[in-house]
Amino acid sequence: MDSPSTTASGWIDEHHQGVRYGLQGRVLVDEKSPYQRITVIDSSRYGKGLLLDGCWMTAEHQERHYHESLVHPALCSAAQLERVLVIGGGDGGTARECLRYQDVKHLDMVEIDGRVVELSQKHLPSIGGHAWSDARLQLNLEDGIAWVANATDSSYDVILVDGSDPTGPAEGLFNKTFFKQCRRILRPGGVFATQSESPEAFRQVHIDTVRLIRQIFGHADPLYGWVPMYPSGWWSWTFAAVDGPRYRNPLPARAAAISSGCEIWSPRWQQGAFQAIPAFIERELT
Amino acid sequence: MDSPSTTASGWIDEHHQGVRYGLQGRVLVDEKSPYQRITVIDSSRYGKGLLLDGCWMTAEHQERHYHESLVHPALCSAAQLERVLVIGGGDGGTARECLRYQDVKHLDMVEIDGRVVELSQKHLPSIGGHAWSDARLQLNLEDGIAWVANATDSSYDVILVDGSDPTGPAEGLFNKTFFKQCRRILRPGGVFATQSESPEAFRQVHIDTVRLIRQIFGHADPLYGWVPMYPSGWWSWTFAAVDGPRYRNPLPARAAAISSGCEIWSPRWQQGAFQAIPAFIERELT
Repeated sequence: MDSPSTTASGWIDEHHQGVRYGLQGRVLVDEKSPYQRITVIDSSRYGKGLLLDGCWMTAEHQERHYHESLVHPALCSAAQLERVLVIGGGDGGTARECLRYQDVKHLDMVEIDGRVVELSQKHLPSIGGHAWSDARLQLNLEDGIAWVANATDSSYDVILVDGSDPTGPAEGLFNKTFFKQCRRILRPGGVFATQSESPEAFRQVHIDTVRLIRQIFGHADPLYGWVPMYPSGWWSWTFAAVDGPRYRNPLPARAAAISSGCEIWSPRWQQGAFQAIPAFIERELT
Repeated sequence: MDSPSTTASGWIDEHHQGVRYGLQGRVLVDEKSPYQRITVIDSSRYGKGLLLDGCWMTAEHQERHYHESLVHPALCSAAQLERVLVIGGGDGGTARECLRYQDVKHLDMVEIDGRVVELSQKHLPSIGGHAWSDARLQLNLEDGIAWVANATDSSYDVILVDGSDPTGPAEGLFNKTFFKQCRRILRPGGVFATQSESPEAFRQVHIDTVRLIRQIFGHADPLYGWVPMYPSGWWSWTFAAVDGPRYRNPLPARAAAISSGCEIWSPRWQQGAFQAIPAFIERELT
Protein backbone atom coordinates (compact mmCIF):
# COMPACT_ATOMS: atom_id res chain seq x y z
CA MET A 1 0.00 0.00 0.00
CA ASP A 2 1.11 3.52 -0.66
CA SER A 3 1.64 6.01 2.10
CA PRO A 4 -1.18 8.46 2.54
CA SER A 5 -0.81 11.39 0.25
CA THR A 6 -1.37 14.70 1.98
CA THR A 7 -1.82 17.65 -0.30
CA ALA A 8 -1.35 21.30 0.40
CA SER A 9 -5.09 21.71 -0.15
CA GLY A 10 -5.83 19.52 2.88
CA TRP A 11 -6.82 16.19 1.37
CA ILE A 12 -5.64 12.94 2.95
CA ASP A 13 -6.04 10.04 0.50
CA GLU A 14 -5.67 6.30 0.37
CA HIS A 15 -4.65 5.05 -3.07
CA HIS A 16 -5.63 1.59 -4.25
CA GLN A 17 -5.35 0.28 -7.81
CA GLY A 18 -5.92 3.59 -9.60
CA VAL A 19 -8.66 4.74 -7.22
CA ARG A 20 -8.33 7.24 -4.39
CA TYR A 21 -10.61 7.94 -1.44
CA GLY A 22 -9.80 11.13 0.39
CA LEU A 23 -11.04 13.11 3.36
CA GLN A 24 -10.59 16.83 3.71
CA GLY A 25 -8.81 17.62 6.93
CA ARG A 26 -5.46 17.98 8.60
CA VAL A 27 -2.86 15.55 9.86
CA LEU A 28 -2.47 15.49 13.65
CA VAL A 29 0.06 12.65 13.98
CA ASP A 30 2.23 10.93 11.40
CA GLU A 31 4.84 8.60 12.87
CA LYS A 32 6.44 5.21 12.41
CA SER A 33 6.03 2.58 15.11
CA PRO A 34 8.16 -0.59 15.07
CA TYR A 35 5.34 -2.21 13.07
CA GLN A 36 3.83 0.36 10.73
CA ARG A 37 3.24 3.97 9.84
CA ILE A 38 0.47 5.49 11.96
CA THR A 39 -1.40 8.59 10.87
CA VAL A 40 -4.15 10.38 12.80
CA ILE A 41 -6.14 13.06 11.04
CA ASP A 42 -8.98 15.44 11.82
CA SER A 43 -11.54 15.41 9.00
CA SER A 44 -14.50 17.67 8.35
CA ARG A 45 -16.86 14.83 7.38
CA TYR A 46 -16.14 11.98 9.83
CA GLY A 47 -14.22 13.56 12.73
CA LYS A 48 -10.87 12.15 13.74
CA GLY A 49 -9.61 9.22 11.70
CA LEU A 50 -6.80 6.67 11.70
CA LEU A 51 -4.64 5.31 8.86
CA LEU A 52 -2.10 2.47 9.12
CA ASP A 53 0.53 2.25 6.38
CA GLY A 54 -1.53 4.72 4.36
CA CYS A 55 -4.77 2.73 4.52
CA TRP A 56 -7.93 4.01 6.16
CA MET A 57 -8.76 2.07 9.33
CA THR A 58 -11.51 3.94 11.12
CA ALA A 59 -12.97 7.34 11.96
CA GLU A 60 -15.11 8.63 14.81
CA HIS A 61 -18.24 9.04 12.71
CA GLN A 62 -17.73 6.12 10.36
CA GLU A 63 -17.00 3.16 12.59
CA ARG A 64 -20.35 1.74 13.63
CA HIS A 65 -21.05 -0.32 10.53
CA TYR A 66 -17.68 -2.10 10.75
CA HIS A 67 -17.74 -2.82 14.47
CA GLU A 68 -21.41 -3.79 14.70
CA SER A 69 -21.04 -6.15 11.70
CA LEU A 70 -18.04 -7.96 13.15
CA VAL A 71 -19.29 -8.25 16.72
CA HIS A 72 -23.05 -8.84 16.93
CA PRO A 73 -23.59 -11.82 14.61
CA ALA A 74 -20.94 -13.65 16.68
CA LEU A 75 -21.90 -12.51 20.18
CA CYS A 76 -25.63 -12.91 19.57
CA SER A 77 -25.18 -16.55 18.53
CA ALA A 78 -22.35 -18.18 20.51
CA ALA A 79 -23.52 -20.76 23.08
CA GLN A 80 -21.70 -18.92 25.87
CA LEU A 81 -19.93 -15.54 26.08
CA GLU A 82 -17.74 -15.96 29.15
CA ARG A 83 -14.34 -15.56 27.45
CA VAL A 84 -13.85 -13.45 24.32
CA LEU A 85 -10.62 -12.98 22.34
CA VAL A 86 -10.08 -9.96 20.06
CA ILE A 87 -7.01 -10.08 17.79
CA GLY A 88 -6.03 -6.56 16.71
CA GLY A 89 -8.76 -4.00 17.25
CA GLY A 90 -6.41 -1.45 18.80
CA ASP A 91 -8.87 1.42 18.24
CA GLY A 92 -11.15 -0.16 20.87
CA GLY A 93 -14.39 -0.26 18.85
CA THR A 94 -14.68 -4.04 18.75
CA ALA A 95 -14.05 -4.34 22.50
CA ARG A 96 -16.62 -1.59 23.16
CA GLU A 97 -19.36 -3.48 21.32
CA CYS A 98 -18.41 -6.81 22.95
CA LEU A 99 -18.51 -5.37 26.46
CA ARG A 100 -22.14 -4.27 25.98
CA TYR A 101 -22.96 -7.96 26.69
CA GLN A 102 -23.18 -8.54 30.44
CA ASP A 103 -22.44 -12.26 29.93
CA VAL A 104 -18.90 -11.44 28.84
CA LYS A 105 -16.72 -12.03 31.92
CA HIS A 106 -13.28 -11.63 30.38
CA LEU A 107 -12.06 -10.09 27.12
CA ASP A 108 -8.48 -10.52 25.92
CA MET A 109 -7.49 -7.87 23.41
CA VAL A 110 -4.24 -8.87 21.71
CA GLU A 111 -2.86 -5.92 19.79
CA ILE A 112 0.68 -6.05 18.46
CA ASP A 113 1.19 -2.29 18.28
CA GLY A 114 0.87 -0.40 21.54
CA ARG A 115 1.14 2.95 19.75
CA VAL A 116 -2.14 2.26 17.94
CA VAL A 117 -3.82 1.84 21.32
CA GLU A 118 -2.16 4.93 22.84
CA LEU A 119 -2.98 7.15 19.88
CA SER A 120 -6.56 5.85 19.69
CA GLN A 121 -7.09 6.46 23.41
CA LYS A 122 -5.73 9.99 23.04
CA HIS A 123 -7.28 11.10 19.74
CA LEU A 124 -10.28 8.81 19.13
CA PRO A 125 -11.52 8.15 22.68
CA SER A 126 -15.16 7.78 21.62
CA ILE A 127 -14.36 4.64 19.61
CA GLY A 128 -13.12 2.62 22.59
CA GLY A 129 -15.47 4.45 24.92
CA HIS A 130 -16.08 2.70 28.24
CA ALA A 131 -14.10 -0.36 27.10
CA TRP A 132 -10.79 1.20 28.15
CA SER A 133 -11.89 1.45 31.79
CA ASP A 134 -13.86 -1.83 31.92
CA ALA A 135 -12.31 -4.27 34.41
CA ARG A 136 -13.23 -7.20 32.14
CA LEU A 137 -10.82 -5.95 29.43
CA GLN A 138 -7.28 -7.30 29.54
CA LEU A 139 -5.05 -5.51 27.05
CA ASN A 140 -2.13 -7.66 25.85
CA LEU A 141 0.43 -5.90 23.68
CA GLU A 142 1.52 -9.07 21.94
CA ASP A 143 1.55 -10.85 18.61
CA GLY A 144 -1.88 -12.35 17.96
CA ILE A 145 -0.46 -15.24 15.94
CA ALA A 146 1.77 -16.32 18.83
CA TRP A 147 -1.12 -15.76 21.27
CA VAL A 148 -3.44 -18.22 19.54
CA ALA A 149 -0.58 -20.72 19.08
CA ASN A 150 0.11 -20.65 22.82
CA ALA A 151 -3.48 -20.57 24.10
CA THR A 152 -5.05 -23.60 25.79
CA ASP A 153 -7.40 -25.85 23.82
CA SER A 154 -11.09 -24.85 24.06
CA SER A 155 -10.41 -21.67 26.02
CA TYR A 156 -12.55 -19.02 24.25
CA ASP A 157 -16.25 -18.73 23.44
CA VAL A 158 -15.78 -16.12 20.72
CA ILE A 159 -12.73 -15.13 18.65
CA LEU A 160 -12.87 -11.91 16.62
CA VAL A 161 -10.09 -10.94 14.23
CA ASP A 162 -10.04 -7.18 13.70
CA GLY A 163 -6.86 -6.77 11.67
CA SER A 164 -5.78 -4.78 8.65
CA ASP A 165 -5.19 -6.00 5.07
CA PRO A 166 -3.11 -9.16 4.58
CA THR A 167 0.13 -7.26 4.04
CA GLY A 168 2.41 -5.98 6.81
CA PRO A 169 1.73 -7.09 10.40
CA ALA A 170 -1.68 -8.64 9.58
CA GLU A 171 -0.42 -11.02 6.88
CA GLY A 172 -0.35 -14.04 9.18
CA LEU A 173 -4.00 -13.56 10.14
CA PHE A 174 -5.20 -14.94 6.79
CA ASN A 175 -3.58 -18.38 6.56
CA LYS A 176 -4.40 -22.00 7.34
CA THR A 177 -2.13 -22.29 10.38
CA PHE A 178 -3.78 -19.32 12.06
CA PHE A 179 -7.33 -20.47 11.34
CA LYS A 180 -6.51 -23.98 12.62
CA GLN A 181 -5.20 -22.58 15.90
CA CYS A 182 -8.35 -20.45 16.24
CA ARG A 183 -10.50 -23.51 15.77
CA ARG A 184 -8.44 -25.44 18.33
CA ILE A 185 -8.83 -22.82 21.07
CA LEU A 186 -12.56 -22.30 20.48
CA ARG A 187 -14.94 -23.97 22.94
CA PRO A 188 -17.83 -26.13 21.70
CA GLY A 189 -20.64 -23.76 20.72
CA GLY A 190 -18.10 -21.03 20.01
CA VAL A 191 -18.05 -18.65 17.05
CA PHE A 192 -15.12 -17.29 15.05
CA ALA A 193 -15.32 -14.10 12.95
CA THR A 194 -12.84 -12.08 10.92
CA GLN A 195 -12.97 -9.12 8.61
CA SER A 196 -12.51 -10.68 5.18
CA GLU A 197 -11.80 -7.79 2.81
CA SER A 198 -13.82 -6.43 -0.11
CA PRO A 199 -15.53 -8.70 -2.64
CA GLU A 200 -14.79 -5.98 -5.19
CA ALA A 201 -11.41 -4.37 -4.43
CA PHE A 202 -9.83 -7.55 -3.00
CA ARG A 203 -11.97 -10.07 -4.84
CA GLN A 204 -9.56 -13.01 -4.92
CA VAL A 205 -8.30 -12.49 -1.35
CA HIS A 206 -11.91 -12.44 -0.20
CA ILE A 207 -12.87 -15.64 -2.03
CA ASP A 208 -9.71 -17.47 -0.93
CA THR A 209 -10.27 -16.43 2.68
CA VAL A 210 -13.87 -17.68 2.78
CA ARG A 211 -12.87 -20.98 1.13
CA LEU A 212 -10.02 -21.53 3.56
CA ILE A 213 -12.14 -20.85 6.63
CA ARG A 214 -14.84 -23.23 5.31
CA GLN A 215 -12.20 -25.88 4.85
CA ILE A 216 -10.90 -25.52 8.42
CA PHE A 217 -14.19 -25.05 10.29
CA GLY A 218 -16.63 -26.99 8.14
CA HIS A 219 -19.07 -24.06 8.16
CA ALA A 220 -18.36 -20.44 7.21
CA ASP A 221 -20.37 -17.67 5.57
CA PRO A 222 -19.47 -14.18 4.42
CA LEU A 223 -21.66 -11.27 5.48
CA TYR A 224 -21.65 -8.15 3.30
CA GLY A 225 -21.80 -4.57 4.45
CA TRP A 226 -20.29 -1.24 3.91
CA VAL A 227 -17.33 0.91 5.08
CA PRO A 228 -17.11 3.94 2.75
CA MET A 229 -13.45 4.70 3.59
CA TYR A 230 -12.25 1.21 2.63
CA PRO A 231 -11.41 0.38 -1.00
CA SER A 232 -14.71 0.20 -2.97
CA GLY A 233 -16.75 0.79 0.21
CA TRP A 234 -18.14 -2.74 -0.07
CA TRP A 235 -16.82 -4.92 2.74
CA SER A 236 -17.20 -8.39 4.22
CA TRP A 237 -16.86 -10.26 7.48
CA THR A 238 -16.75 -14.05 7.59
CA PHE A 239 -18.24 -16.13 10.40
CA ALA A 240 -17.46 -19.73 11.25
CA ALA A 241 -18.38 -22.30 13.86
CA VAL A 242 -17.46 -25.89 14.51
CA ASP A 243 -20.85 -27.31 15.38
CA GLY A 244 -23.12 -25.89 12.65
CA PRO A 245 -23.68 -22.37 11.30
CA ARG A 246 -25.21 -21.04 14.51
CA TYR A 247 -24.01 -17.50 13.63
CA ARG A 248 -26.88 -17.26 11.14
CA ASN A 249 -29.48 -17.12 13.90
CA PRO A 250 -29.12 -14.46 16.59
CA LEU A 251 -30.59 -15.55 19.92
CA PRO A 252 -33.70 -13.37 20.37
CA ALA A 253 -33.14 -12.40 23.99
CA ARG A 254 -29.56 -11.26 23.37
CA ALA A 255 -30.51 -9.46 20.17
CA ALA A 256 -33.30 -7.60 21.95
CA ALA A 257 -30.90 -6.36 24.63
CA ILE A 258 -28.45 -5.03 22.04
CA SER A 259 -30.54 -3.78 19.10
CA SER A 260 -31.67 -0.43 20.45
CA GLY A 261 -28.06 0.73 20.83
CA CYS A 262 -27.15 -0.14 17.25
CA GLU A 263 -27.01 2.14 14.25
CA ILE A 264 -26.72 -0.52 11.54
CA TRP A 265 -27.08 -4.01 13.00
CA SER A 266 -30.41 -5.67 13.64
CA PRO A 267 -31.44 -9.31 13.25
CA ARG A 268 -33.21 -8.30 10.04
CA TRP A 269 -30.18 -6.45 8.68
CA GLN A 270 -27.93 -9.41 9.54
CA GLN A 271 -30.22 -11.89 7.80
CA GLY A 272 -30.24 -9.74 4.67
CA ALA A 273 -26.51 -9.13 4.71
CA PHE A 274 -25.80 -12.89 4.80
CA GLN A 275 -28.23 -13.46 1.92
CA ALA A 276 -26.97 -10.64 -0.30
CA ILE A 277 -24.13 -12.58 -1.91
CA PRO A 278 -23.40 -11.16 -5.36
CA ALA A 279 -23.96 -13.70 -8.14
CA PHE A 280 -20.29 -13.83 -9.14
CA ILE A 281 -19.20 -14.75 -5.59
CA GLU A 282 -21.97 -17.31 -5.13
CA ARG A 283 -20.85 -19.03 -8.34
CA GLU A 284 -17.24 -19.14 -7.14
CA LEU A 285 -18.08 -20.42 -3.66
CA THR A 286 -20.33 -23.29 -4.71
CA MET B 1 -22.20 19.70 -6.96
CA ASP B 2 -18.70 20.81 -7.77
CA SER B 3 -17.17 20.39 -11.18
CA PRO B 4 -14.78 17.48 -11.46
CA SER B 5 -11.30 18.43 -10.39
CA THR B 6 -8.64 17.21 -12.77
CA THR B 7 -5.12 17.36 -11.46
CA ALA B 8 -1.88 17.44 -13.36
CA SER B 9 -1.11 14.05 -11.84
CA GLY B 10 -4.06 12.53 -13.70
CA TRP B 11 -6.73 12.17 -11.02
CA ILE B 12 -10.36 12.94 -11.82
CA ASP B 13 -12.36 13.39 -8.61
CA GLU B 14 -15.91 13.94 -7.46
CA HIS B 15 -16.12 16.01 -4.29
CA HIS B 16 -18.99 15.56 -1.86
CA GLN B 17 -19.18 16.96 1.69
CA GLY B 18 -15.46 16.86 2.46
CA VAL B 19 -14.92 13.47 0.77
CA ARG B 20 -13.42 12.82 -2.64
CA TYR B 21 -13.50 9.73 -4.82
CA GLY B 22 -11.06 9.82 -7.70
CA LEU B 23 -10.00 7.66 -10.59
CA GLN B 24 -6.58 7.84 -12.19
CA GLY B 25 -6.90 8.51 -15.89
CA ARG B 26 -7.27 11.18 -18.51
CA VAL B 27 -10.10 13.36 -19.71
CA LEU B 28 -11.32 12.58 -23.24
CA VAL B 29 -14.26 14.99 -23.44
CA ASP B 30 -15.26 17.92 -21.24
CA GLU B 31 -18.07 20.03 -22.65
CA LYS B 32 -21.27 21.82 -21.70
CA SER B 33 -24.55 20.69 -23.21
CA PRO B 34 -27.67 22.86 -22.86
CA TYR B 35 -28.46 20.85 -19.71
CA GLN B 36 -25.22 20.04 -17.92
CA ARG B 37 -21.47 19.61 -18.02
CA ILE B 38 -20.52 16.27 -19.57
CA THR B 39 -17.11 14.69 -18.95
CA VAL B 40 -15.84 11.44 -20.41
CA ILE B 41 -12.63 9.97 -19.02
CA ASP B 42 -10.45 6.95 -19.60
CA SER B 43 -9.48 5.38 -16.26
CA SER B 44 -6.96 2.67 -15.46
CA ARG B 45 -9.23 0.84 -13.00
CA TYR B 46 -12.72 0.89 -14.58
CA GLY B 47 -12.18 1.75 -18.25
CA LYS B 48 -14.02 4.69 -19.75
CA GLY B 49 -16.27 6.63 -17.41
CA LEU B 50 -18.89 9.39 -17.47
CA LEU B 51 -19.46 12.36 -15.16
CA LEU B 52 -22.39 14.80 -15.30
CA ASP B 53 -21.93 18.15 -13.55
CA GLY B 54 -18.85 16.71 -11.86
CA CYS B 55 -20.61 13.66 -10.42
CA TRP B 56 -19.69 10.11 -11.33
CA MET B 57 -22.44 8.42 -13.35
CA THR B 58 -21.04 5.18 -14.69
CA ALA B 59 -17.96 3.42 -16.06
CA GLU B 60 -17.46 0.46 -18.37
CA HIS B 61 -16.27 -1.88 -15.64
CA GLN B 62 -18.37 -0.55 -12.78
CA GLU B 63 -21.89 -0.44 -14.12
CA ARG B 64 -23.35 -3.90 -13.62
CA HIS B 65 -24.33 -3.53 -9.98
CA TYR B 66 -26.31 -0.33 -10.65
CA HIS B 67 -28.10 -1.48 -13.78
CA GLU B 68 -28.89 -5.01 -12.59
CA SER B 69 -30.25 -3.66 -9.28
CA LEU B 70 -32.59 -1.18 -10.95
CA VAL B 71 -33.86 -3.46 -13.72
CA HIS B 72 -34.25 -7.07 -12.58
CA PRO B 73 -36.37 -6.77 -9.41
CA ALA B 74 -38.88 -4.82 -11.54
CA LEU B 75 -38.79 -6.83 -14.74
CA CYS B 76 -38.77 -10.18 -12.94
CA SER B 77 -41.95 -9.31 -11.05
CA ALA B 78 -44.27 -7.16 -13.20
CA ALA B 79 -47.42 -8.97 -14.38
CA GLN B 80 -46.60 -8.18 -18.01
CA LEU B 81 -43.58 -6.66 -19.75
CA GLU B 82 -45.01 -5.52 -23.07
CA ARG B 83 -44.31 -1.79 -22.69
CA VAL B 84 -41.40 -0.43 -20.65
CA LEU B 85 -40.55 3.23 -19.97
CA VAL B 86 -37.04 4.33 -19.00
CA ILE B 87 -36.64 7.95 -17.86
CA GLY B 88 -33.03 9.08 -18.24
CA GLY B 89 -30.58 6.24 -18.65
CA GLY B 90 -28.77 7.89 -21.55
CA ASP B 91 -25.72 5.62 -21.16
CA GLY B 92 -27.88 2.72 -22.37
CA GLY B 93 -27.17 0.24 -19.55
CA THR B 94 -30.73 0.15 -18.21
CA ALA B 95 -32.17 -0.41 -21.70
CA ARG B 96 -29.61 -3.15 -22.36
CA GLU B 97 -30.68 -5.12 -19.28
CA CYS B 98 -34.41 -4.59 -20.05
CA LEU B 99 -34.08 -5.83 -23.61
CA ARG B 100 -32.68 -9.16 -22.41
CA TYR B 101 -36.35 -10.02 -21.68
CA GLN B 102 -38.00 -11.37 -24.83
CA ASP B 103 -41.43 -10.37 -23.46
CA VAL B 104 -40.55 -6.69 -23.81
CA LYS B 105 -42.16 -5.55 -27.07
CA HIS B 106 -41.52 -1.81 -26.84
CA LEU B 107 -39.15 0.29 -24.73
CA ASP B 108 -39.42 4.08 -24.61
CA MET B 109 -36.20 5.69 -23.45
CA VAL B 110 -36.84 9.35 -22.61
CA GLU B 111 -33.52 11.14 -22.17
CA ILE B 112 -33.46 14.91 -22.01
CA ASP B 113 -29.86 15.30 -23.14
CA GLY B 114 -29.01 13.93 -26.58
CA ARG B 115 -25.31 14.62 -26.06
CA VAL B 116 -25.22 12.07 -23.21
CA VAL B 117 -26.53 9.46 -25.63
CA GLU B 118 -24.15 10.46 -28.44
CA LEU B 119 -21.09 10.50 -26.19
CA SER B 120 -22.07 7.21 -24.54
CA GLN B 121 -22.57 5.54 -27.92
CA LYS B 122 -19.19 6.81 -29.07
CA HIS B 123 -17.05 6.30 -25.95
CA LEU B 124 -18.86 3.72 -23.80
CA PRO B 125 -20.49 1.48 -26.42
CA SER B 126 -20.31 -1.66 -24.25
CA ILE B 127 -22.74 -0.14 -21.72
CA GLY B 128 -25.62 0.21 -24.18
CA GLY B 129 -24.45 -2.83 -26.11
CA HIS B 130 -27.08 -4.36 -28.40
CA ALA B 131 -29.76 -2.00 -27.06
CA TRP B 132 -28.78 0.75 -29.47
CA SER B 133 -29.56 -1.41 -32.51
CA ASP B 134 -32.60 -3.20 -31.04
CA ALA B 135 -35.77 -2.41 -33.02
CA ARG B 136 -37.81 -2.47 -29.79
CA LEU B 137 -35.97 0.60 -28.46
CA GLN B 138 -37.51 3.98 -29.21
CA LEU B 139 -35.18 6.80 -28.20
CA ASN B 140 -37.05 10.02 -27.35
CA LEU B 141 -34.87 13.06 -26.70
CA GLU B 142 -37.43 14.76 -24.51
CA ASP B 143 -38.14 15.87 -20.96
CA GLY B 144 -39.17 12.85 -18.87
CA ILE B 145 -41.40 14.94 -16.62
CA ALA B 146 -43.43 16.20 -19.57
CA TRP B 147 -43.45 12.71 -21.07
CA VAL B 148 -45.14 11.11 -18.06
CA ALA B 149 -47.55 14.06 -17.75
CA ASN B 150 -48.65 13.57 -21.37
CA ALA B 151 -48.74 9.75 -21.44
CA THR B 152 -52.04 7.87 -21.58
CA ASP B 153 -53.45 6.30 -18.40
CA SER B 154 -52.33 2.69 -17.81
CA SER B 155 -49.95 2.62 -20.75
CA TYR B 156 -46.76 1.03 -19.30
CA ASP B 157 -46.02 -2.25 -17.53
CA VAL B 158 -42.76 -1.06 -16.00
CA ILE B 159 -41.37 2.44 -15.36
CA LEU B 160 -37.70 2.80 -14.46
CA VAL B 161 -36.23 6.15 -13.43
CA ASP B 162 -32.48 6.22 -14.10
CA GLY B 163 -31.68 9.86 -13.35
CA SER B 164 -28.95 11.74 -11.55
CA ASP B 165 -29.07 13.43 -8.14
CA PRO B 166 -32.05 15.68 -7.37
CA THR B 167 -30.29 18.87 -8.43
CA GLY B 168 -30.01 20.12 -12.02
CA PRO B 169 -32.10 18.42 -14.72
CA ALA B 170 -33.13 15.48 -12.48
CA GLU B 171 -34.68 17.60 -9.69
CA GLY B 172 -38.25 17.08 -10.90
CA LEU B 173 -37.86 13.29 -10.80
CA PHE B 174 -38.11 13.25 -7.00
CA ASN B 175 -41.40 14.97 -6.23
CA LYS B 176 -45.04 14.09 -5.59
CA THR B 177 -46.36 15.31 -8.95
CA PHE B 178 -43.93 13.13 -10.85
CA PHE B 179 -44.60 10.00 -8.78
CA LYS B 180 -48.37 10.53 -9.12
CA GLN B 181 -48.09 10.70 -12.89
CA CYS B 182 -45.99 7.54 -12.90
CA ARG B 183 -48.65 5.74 -10.91
CA ARG B 184 -51.37 6.99 -13.27
CA ILE B 185 -49.66 5.69 -16.41
CA LEU B 186 -48.75 2.29 -14.90
CA ARG B 187 -50.95 -0.67 -15.90
CA PRO B 188 -52.46 -2.96 -13.24
CA GLY B 189 -49.75 -5.40 -12.20
CA GLY B 190 -47.10 -2.86 -13.17
CA VAL B 191 -43.95 -2.00 -11.23
CA PHE B 192 -42.21 1.35 -10.72
CA ALA B 193 -38.53 1.69 -9.74
CA THR B 194 -36.16 4.60 -9.26
CA GLN B 195 -32.64 5.06 -8.04
CA SER B 196 -33.13 6.61 -4.59
CA GLU B 197 -29.71 7.92 -3.55
CA SER B 198 -27.42 6.84 -0.69
CA PRO B 199 -28.73 6.08 2.81
CA GLU B 200 -25.43 7.50 4.06
CA ALA B 201 -24.31 10.40 1.84
CA PHE B 202 -27.87 11.57 1.04
CA ARG B 203 -29.59 10.18 4.12
CA GLN B 204 -32.51 12.59 4.34
CA VAL B 205 -33.16 12.69 0.58
CA HIS B 206 -33.24 8.89 0.62
CA ILE B 207 -35.68 8.66 3.53
CA ASP B 208 -37.94 11.40 2.14
CA THR B 209 -38.00 9.71 -1.28
CA VAL B 210 -39.01 6.30 0.11
CA ARG B 211 -41.71 7.89 2.30
CA LEU B 212 -43.14 9.87 -0.60
CA ILE B 213 -43.27 6.89 -2.94
CA ARG B 214 -44.98 4.82 -0.22
CA GLN B 215 -47.53 7.57 0.21
CA ILE B 216 -48.32 7.69 -3.53
CA PHE B 217 -48.25 3.97 -4.36
CA GLY B 218 -49.31 2.38 -1.08
CA HIS B 219 -46.35 -0.04 -1.24
CA ALA B 220 -42.68 0.79 -1.69
CA ASP B 221 -39.43 -0.71 -0.45
CA PRO B 222 -35.80 0.36 -0.73
CA LEU B 223 -33.22 -2.16 -1.89
CA TYR B 224 -29.59 -1.59 -0.87
CA GLY B 225 -26.48 -2.23 -2.92
CA TRP B 226 -23.14 -0.77 -3.97
CA VAL B 227 -21.80 1.63 -6.55
CA PRO B 228 -18.22 2.37 -5.43
CA MET B 229 -17.94 5.57 -7.52
CA TYR B 230 -21.04 7.18 -5.96
CA PRO B 231 -20.81 9.14 -2.70
CA SER B 232 -20.20 6.62 0.14
CA GLY B 233 -20.46 3.69 -2.29
CA TRP B 234 -23.67 2.56 -0.55
CA TRP B 235 -26.66 3.05 -2.83
CA SER B 236 -30.39 2.37 -2.99
CA TRP B 237 -33.16 1.76 -5.49
CA THR B 238 -36.81 1.99 -4.48
CA PHE B 239 -39.54 -0.23 -5.93
CA ALA B 240 -43.27 0.39 -5.84
CA ALA B 241 -46.43 -1.21 -7.16
CA VAL B 242 -50.11 -0.39 -6.93
CA ASP B 243 -51.51 -3.85 -6.26
CA GLY B 244 -49.21 -5.21 -3.54
CA PRO B 245 -45.44 -5.46 -3.20
CA ARG B 246 -45.02 -7.94 -6.05
CA TYR B 247 -41.46 -6.67 -6.68
CA ARG B 248 -40.34 -8.64 -3.63
CA ASN B 249 -40.86 -11.97 -5.38
CA PRO B 250 -39.16 -12.54 -8.73
CA LEU B 251 -41.11 -14.92 -10.97
CA PRO B 252 -38.97 -18.10 -11.08
CA ALA B 253 -39.18 -18.71 -14.84
CA ARG B 254 -38.13 -15.16 -15.69
CA ALA B 255 -35.38 -15.15 -13.06
CA ALA B 256 -33.97 -18.42 -14.38
CA ALA B 257 -33.73 -17.01 -17.90
CA ILE B 258 -31.84 -13.91 -16.71
CA SER B 259 -29.64 -15.06 -13.80
CA SER B 260 -26.79 -16.66 -15.69
CA GLY B 261 -26.02 -13.39 -17.48
CA CYS B 262 -25.86 -11.38 -14.25
CA GLU B 263 -22.79 -10.41 -12.28
CA ILE B 264 -24.53 -9.21 -9.10
CA TRP B 265 -28.26 -9.89 -9.28
CA SER B 266 -29.82 -13.19 -8.34
CA PRO B 267 -33.12 -13.90 -6.57
CA ARG B 268 -31.08 -14.65 -3.44
CA TRP B 269 -29.10 -11.42 -3.70
CA GLN B 270 -32.31 -9.43 -4.24
CA GLN B 271 -34.02 -10.98 -1.23
CA GLY B 272 -31.02 -10.14 0.95
CA ALA B 273 -30.67 -6.61 -0.38
CA PHE B 274 -34.33 -5.82 0.46
CA GLN B 275 -33.85 -7.24 3.98
CA ALA B 276 -30.59 -5.47 4.75
CA ILE B 277 -32.10 -2.20 5.93
CA PRO B 278 -29.76 -0.50 8.39
CA ALA B 279 -31.31 -0.12 11.83
CA PHE B 280 -31.36 3.71 11.68
CA ILE B 281 -33.35 3.69 8.42
CA GLU B 282 -35.77 1.01 9.62
CA ARG B 283 -36.50 3.12 12.71
CA GLU B 284 -37.19 6.18 10.56
CA LEU B 285 -39.41 4.39 8.05
CA THR B 286 -41.68 2.65 10.54
